Amino acid sequence: MAELVGNVLVGQSGGPTAVINASVAGIISEALNHECIEEIYGALNGVLGILHEDLIDLASESQQQIRALRHTPGAALGTCRYKLKKQQDFERVLEVFKAHNIRYFFYIGGNDSQDTADKIAKLAQEQGYELRVIGVPKTIDNDLPVTDHCPGYASAVKYITTAVKEVACDNESMGQGDLVSIIEVMGRSAGWIAAGAALAKRRDHPHDPPHIILLPEISFNQEKIMEDIRRVLKRERYCLIVVAEGLVDADGNYVAAEGNTDAFGHAQLGGAGDALAEIISQNIPGVKVRVAKPGLLQRCGAHTASKTDADESFLTGQAAVKAAINGESDKMITLMRGDGDHYTSETGLAPLADVANSVKKLPRDWINEDGISMNFQFLRYAQPLIQGEVTVPHENGVPTFARLDRVRVDKTLPAYEG
Amino acid sequence: MAELVGNVLVGQSGGPTAVINASVAGIISEALNHECIEEIYGALNGVLGILHEDLIDLASESQQQIRALRHTPGAALGTCRYKLKKQQDFERVLEVFKAHNIRYFFYIGGNDSQDTADKIAKLAQEQGYELRVIGVPKTIDNDLPVTDHCPGYASAVKYITTAVKEVACDNESMGQGDLVSIIEVMGRSAGWIAAGAALAKRRDHPHDPPHIILLPEISFNQEKIMEDIRRVLKRERYCLIVVAEGLVDADGNYVAAEGNTDAFGHAQLGGAGDALAEIISQNIPGVKVRVAKPGLLQRCGAHTASKTDADESFLTGQAAVKAAINGESDKMITLMRGDGDHYTSETGLAPLADVANSVKKLPRDWINEDGISMNFQFLRYAQPLIQGEVTVPHENGVPTFARLDRVRVDKTLPAYEG
Repeated sequence: MAELVGNVLVGQSGGPTAVINASVAGIISEALNHECIEEIYGALNGVLGILHEDLIDLASESQQQIRALRHTPGAALGTCRYKLKKQQDFERVLEVFKAHNIRYFFYIGGNDSQDTADKIAKLAQEQGYELRVIGVPKTIDNDLPVTDHCPGYASAVKYITTAVKEVACDNESMGQGDLVSIIEVMGRSAGWIAAGAALAKRRDHPHDPPHIILLPEISFNQEKIMEDIRRVLKRERYCLIVVAEGLVDADGNYVAAEGNTDAFGHAQLGGAGDALAEIISQNIPGVKVRVAKPGLLQRCGAHTASKTDADESFLTGQAAVKAAINGESDKMITLMRGDGDHYTSETGLAPLADVANSVKKLPRDWINEDGISMNFQFLRYAQPLIQGEVTVPHENGVPTFARLDRVRVDKTLPAYEG
Repeated sequence: MAELVGNVLVGQSGGPTAVINASVAGIISEALNHECIEEIYGALNGVLGILHEDLIDLASESQQQIRALRHTPGAALGTCRYKLKKQQDFERVLEVFKAHNIRYFFYIGGNDSQDTADKIAKLAQEQGYELRVIGVPKTIDNDLPVTDHCPGYASAVKYITTAVKEVACDNESMGQGDLVSIIEVMGRSAGWIAAGAALAKRRDHPHDPPHIILLPEISFNQEKIMEDIRRVLKRERYCLIVVAEGLVDADGNYVAAEGNTDAFGHAQLGGAGDALAEIISQNIPGVKVRVAKPGLLQRCGAHTASKTDADESFLTGQAAVKAAINGESDKMITLMRGDGDHYTSETGLAPLADVANSVKKLPRDWINEDGISMNFQFLRYAQPLIQGEVTVPHENGVPTFARLDRVRVDKTLPAYEG
């Protein structure tokens, strides 16, 4: 393999996670080990930063700040939902890469981002510009194919299981068989996060909370679920429900949207949790319903991050650099689980094209027949991922996170008019 | 002081907090030091447990479990919102006390509970039944008078400040001057918790998030607040708002309730956060609004509890026993702040009657003139309370909490028909 001398560019894309910055830290740490890498740049706000030549010098950041990235939520480089579409956009990306001698491009993101990375890699190849492109997986949705799981997912699950355990203590003390408590979690098209709440149950305690998990995969049967709730309330002091925001009815309509317009005809912003609360209040007289909607908190909960997840995110960053140095390109780093009883993982590589256009669904046979709980196959899959706690440093009683200096790299091109 | 030999009864009342069980642990630990105390009982579900003679033997719990109470949220003895009203109820309480030789009664709760404790103490005195009653303060609302602050408050604030710091990282990475992020917090009649979010700002960084704090104390002026939001969005990539659930308009109506009926005419369960989001969407075109409503999570967040708060809660429990042993009765334990620059606190005593019928309001002059931020007087008050972190043990990746054996004390009275 001929040594490729040049600069690194790292970008982050899509919704952030609690551990996406750990991958950036992994990339920087590893890049510093290789002499063929001259500069380490970051693109501000994903591809937008590339288009507008908004680059920062990551090597000039203090080691303290880079280390702090390992426990800092959000995307420290900024991110965007802008999707490169026009040929002109892609041409511009290469123009910027050439202007800054970018030879290694690492893009951390979900499906769309891997698709973008794939297209950039292919265009560079067409044009004979030597560039190595490696995608780093990231998404709380856990829906990327090929990889066993996605960095970011386990920390979202750990946030939710922590919430379930704590809310259960509160509900247990307040309920008298008349309390329904709803936690609405993210997951518009897949129930990976809601399913993860099942990890809050102790082994062999199927009656532990959450008593009911409502997944987008199982269409909402109002009559059956009301019966499920009544049954739980006969047995327990309270019924704790975890509902995915993307819960749909038998016709495939979001439960959240049903009839939800206010007096002015505006669609209500309330979600599946509020809609479910309304249905329960109407159908089960005398119950008190409480709704919690942690929203963004569940994807940025660094203080409840899984250490396994944070470590693996760092590892995928390192692995991306190693793979590129070894001549790989147009690939995404995957996480592969060992075969043994004891959980182990190592990184692998998959063609970006294989990742970009497919989605990993929650297997139907990991859901119990009751449609509201997860079986041992899911638990065996998810349990190892949430192990270990991360310590976030505090200052004055509040968590303290990395703050990058963001030293700008001089622009050399005319402004982009695309 | 003549030694009073007999049994202890502990009860918990009202909405739980992240640290209310630390007070129970303090009471039990201290009670074990005194030979005049023979048995240590707990009342299940507050006064309901007393009326129905549902008592448990706390001395038979393992030391491990009692220690675990120090980091266990919810009310481990159960709680209730039942308020003793009828004379018959009060008579029954004394009957149960006599049947079990209860000579020391410790009641952990807010205003209503202290009122109940006061009435029980006075009735016992009238009837010549020797009983020492000490109230232990507890409420995330921080609205008990006389005491400098209430155990439970600081941990709710620490939960919210942690959320603000983390969500800010997420928002900072996503926003392009077009993102408004709302966190709805508890506080129906007073803004103590919402105000506490101000502690997320670094010292001398007034532009740090939360950019806008909406308190029930300042009536909602829609035009002004929209202008405030626009100003923040010109300066920052996002505008983070913390809103108290009890936000009211100039006429004193809850903002949450405004126009909020669905297509069927049912009142919507959405709160101030959703209502505010709707108003912003209508008035500031092109912004994306995200709402988080942590709900109960903020009052049971043991993993984000303030160590100062947890320690003080334990201390108030200990102090209650010491005071009773010293012959005090019909009093509530208070927390008194030292005069020095460095924060110190010690416990004091206040007549229950002084506590029962009054509420401590957030001082108007601790709110800045802009009506949306807190001044140094508030920060000086609240900052010391959230210092220090609590370590919650984890098992299999999820937090693990105390589980009491709840060994029942034999009933000796006929069932209560009241």
